[in-house]
Amino acid sequence: MAGDSRHSEQPERAAVAALAESFVAGLAEWIRIPSIGVDPAHHADVRRSADWLAQALVEDGWPQVEVWGDGPALPAVFACWPAADPDAPTVLVYGHHDVQPVDPVQRWEHPPFEPVISGDELRGRGASDDKGQVLMHLLGVKAHLQAQQTNAPSITLKLFVEGEEESGSPHLRKLLDDHEMQLGCDLVVFTDTALHDRDSPTVNTGQRGVLGAEIVFQGGTDDVHSGRAGGAIPNPATALAKLVAALHDENGRIQLDGFYDDVREPSTKEREDYASLPYDEQDWLRRNGGGAQATRGEPGYTTYERLWVRPTAEVNGISGGYTGPGFKTIIPAHATAKISFRLVPDQHPDRVKEQLDAFVAKHTPPGITARVSVRGEGVPPYAISPDDPANEAVLEAMELAFDQPVRFARAGGSGPAAVLRQKLGVPLVYLGATLPDDRVHAPNERVVVPLLLKGAEAAAHLWRMLAKAEIAKRLSP
Amino acid sequence: MAGDSRHSEQPERAAVAALAESFVAGLAEWIRIPSIGVDPAHHADVRRSADWLAQALVEDGWPQVEVWGDGPALPAVFACWPAADPDAPTVLVYGHHDVQPVDPVQRWEHPPFEPVISGDELRGRGASDDKGQVLMHLLGVKAHLQAQQTNAPSITLKLFVEGEEESGSPHLRKLLDDHEMQLGCDLVVFTDTALHDRDSPTVNTGQRGVLGAEIVFQGGTDDVHSGRAGGAIPNPATALAKLVAALHDENGRIQLDGFYDDVREPSTKEREDYASLPYDEQDWLRRNGGGAQATRGEPGYTTYERLWVRPTAEVNGISGGYTGPGFKTIIPAHATAKISFRLVPDQHPDRVKEQLDAFVAKHTPPGITARVSVRGEGVPPYAISPDDPANEAVLEAMELAFDQPVRFARAGGSGPAAVLRQKLGVPLVYLGATLPDDRVHAPNERVVVPLLLKGAEAAAHLWRMLAKAEIAKRLSP
Repeated sequence: MAGDSRHSEQPERAAVAALAESFVAGLAEWIRIPSIGVDPAHHADVRRSADWLAQALVEDGWPQVEVWGDGPALPAVFACWPAADPDAPTVLVYGHHDVQPVDPVQRWEHPPFEPVISGDELRGRGASDDKGQVLMHLLGVKAHLQAQQTNAPSITLKLFVEGEEESGSPHLRKLLDDHEMQLGCDLVVFTDTALHDRDSPTVNTGQRGVLGAEIVFQGGTDDVHSGRAGGAIPNPATALAKLVAALHDENGRIQLDGFYDDVREPSTKEREDYASLPYDEQDWLRRNGGGAQATRGEPGYTTYERLWVRPTAEVNGISGGYTGPGFKTIIPAHATAKISFRLVPDQHPDRVKEQLDAFVAKHTPPGITARVSVRGEGVPPYAISPDDPANEAVLEAMELAFDQPVRFARAGGSGPAAVLRQKLGVPLVYLGATLPDDRVHAPNERVVVPLLLKGAEAAAHLWRMLAKAEIAKRLSP
Repeated sequence: MAGDSRHSEQPERAAVAALAESFVAGLAEWIRIPSIGVDPAHHADVRRSADWLAQALVEDGWPQVEVWGDGPALPAVFACWPAADPDAPTVLVYGHHDVQPVDPVQRWEHPPFEPVISGDELRGRGASDDKGQVLMHLLGVKAHLQAQQTNAPSITLKLFVEGEEESGSPHLRKLLDDHEMQLGCDLVVFTDTALHDRDSPTVNTGQRGVLGAEIVFQGGTDDVHSGRAGGAIPNPATALAKLVAALHDENGRIQLDGFYDDVREPSTKEREDYASLPYDEQDWLRRNGGGAQATRGEPGYTTYERLWVRPTAEVNGISGGYTGPGFKTIIPAHATAKISFRLVPDQHPDRVKEQLDAFVAKHTPPGITARVSVRGEGVPPYAISPDDPANEAVLEAMELAFDQPVRFARAGGSGPAAVLRQKLGVPLVYLGATLPDDRVHAPNERVVVPLLLKGAEAAAHLWRMLAKAEIAKRLSP
């Protein structure tokens, strides 16, 4: 349907095209600031990155721009551009400007913070995750204003770009509390999300939550020679293996009591959408499986469903005793398993932690002491119905921009969507235009520029559409 | 029964007492040579240690003394002292002169190679394992000659002291082959063994064998982000945990097909002897359990039986994925378990390896590739009946020296006894007088000198007794 004349004459598209060159130049400039938030040596760069974004917003004409950098959080950027109509709905766009570390740096084909253009790609750390998509939204606002030939957006737009997402957003709740009034809105648009693939644009409707847990089984206080005590004392590594083995039954169902009680089944419409997306097992494995030889998972669900709408329990690491080269005949004093649970609506990390505690207690044999610790509070899962009016508007905006049918999908990973939803008390939708194989968090990160331009156009359409009375009314009941 | 006049007037005891002072001085001198065989930086010391022993044997009057140091093995010492009667049996005494490393050296209360006397103990690396017991046998021969008032022993004595026992005796088979004629004998006496405890002297009748195996489960080629593939590909750490969990049933029985087929039950007499030894669970755990909270093992067997006459499968180490501090949400590409099997007569490492291969094949799920490797050829188990005439003679000699009843026991660890038995084709008995809590392989190794003197006396009794026609005849049929 590309080139369909119904869509190609949209003024938003022309505006985006006219701004494309300066957009790429701006993104390249921003990538040059190595805002690696997890590395204290780069915290000054995170501040420079926030200042750079604030300056770009000022230059774009945003009337209210702030850098929030006084508290414990790394600097976040906030901006607001009120609609002319005081009754228009308010939308908050969420993104982040911190980037992942670059190790192993020797596997980059060019220096990670010296962006290069290759074909239709811009390469560099942060190009896709998430600087490209933040600037995509700045471009979308400019295109919206030009298309509407006005100096104020059709709706009130707010932008909130944090600096700690790659660190797990440890101060996000505090930022949301501290700036509750400023951040008030009717809808959140979450930028840090991807299309299914280049030829299959999708609108994300959710992310799994995650609870990371470490289980330590302690036997004695010291490793013991296995000739001296082997067969006569408990082996914590064997006991821990039995616990890990008991986590799943033979069908891969997770055996925590009550684990599935809160799991919401996807709607028929969602399953149909997922089934309509292209899927080739070998191709999927090649791109996502790290060289895995086959897919495997819960019976009765497709690979996409296993990734998007089903919870998991994965061993991230296991260790105990002697793990160096060769052999050492000991009974270990202790053994440790790191296990992460991916959660789906309406599971909650707190309840899963309770279920895990009960499971560990049940599987701790006599003579072993168990210790369970979890990573922070965990990340709750989030999903929004495809039938939500805001989601319908996003889908329509994406179809206008991409000139083809767009499906709903979800993401297998986790993010702060549920926290934003919960703290701000409004629906959250996703609008992104990057790709799953952009090598985010890996060497040679890239972004496909024409997709970002389509994303900007979709955003410009969305701001226009959200001002329509029937959607605005449903957003602000 | 200590001081019982029937035994205390034995001339062997008087001879040992007269030689005690020079014995301790000699042992202290030998300990000063840091013959750490596993450390190439100390290989010159291993040679010095062999030369020191050879010189001591020459000074004692042994007519034939050799250092075997030309081949790939670290130097071994061989000596022979023929009996006057050419029809007398020949006994080969086996020991070793290499010692364990001294790490962690900061936990030693004195420098490990500067021996000190503390009460009735001599402290230093190798004091117990095995220099003390090798010199104990030199002392026993001198006491035998003095007691018998002769210049030649009642039986032909050979001494074979290797320099690689702490390295797993990698060249023992070759040494035995290369020197087959010289090493020919009717009986082997194995020195590297301990009493049950200070108040409960025992004669060892066997050691468990061992097979060390490493099992690697490979999924993909790279770790994968668990949000991206979790729930949809096999997790090799989970799969390996299921294999390890399946190794034992709920009663701790090992689940390799055929594993128990070759296991020989101990005799009623042996079980009675083990049951008559003092046992206090908390005391045993404190001394042997590395701080373990409780004993645990195969139902129907006592702790001693679990250690001495039952086979085991112990996880020595397990690893996979991220094992550092904090969390990393990955699906590991591979996971590894190091498992050692302690074996009892008549199990054989080769057969257990075949059983393990079949077990691993059965428990490798689709999508996982398994790799099993074993440590060398494994060590076969060894045991000799308490009713063997040579063993009866050892028991009687020990009772004469210790002035109290002596029980039969076994050892849970492994050693080259089965290799000596197999290569030399003759029975092997144990005669040692060290203690399980001598801290061998650990800081602050010590030996209890009065026990070594009793052991030397027992050896002197044994050489006299083995010359008696009825035993000699049964040894050399």
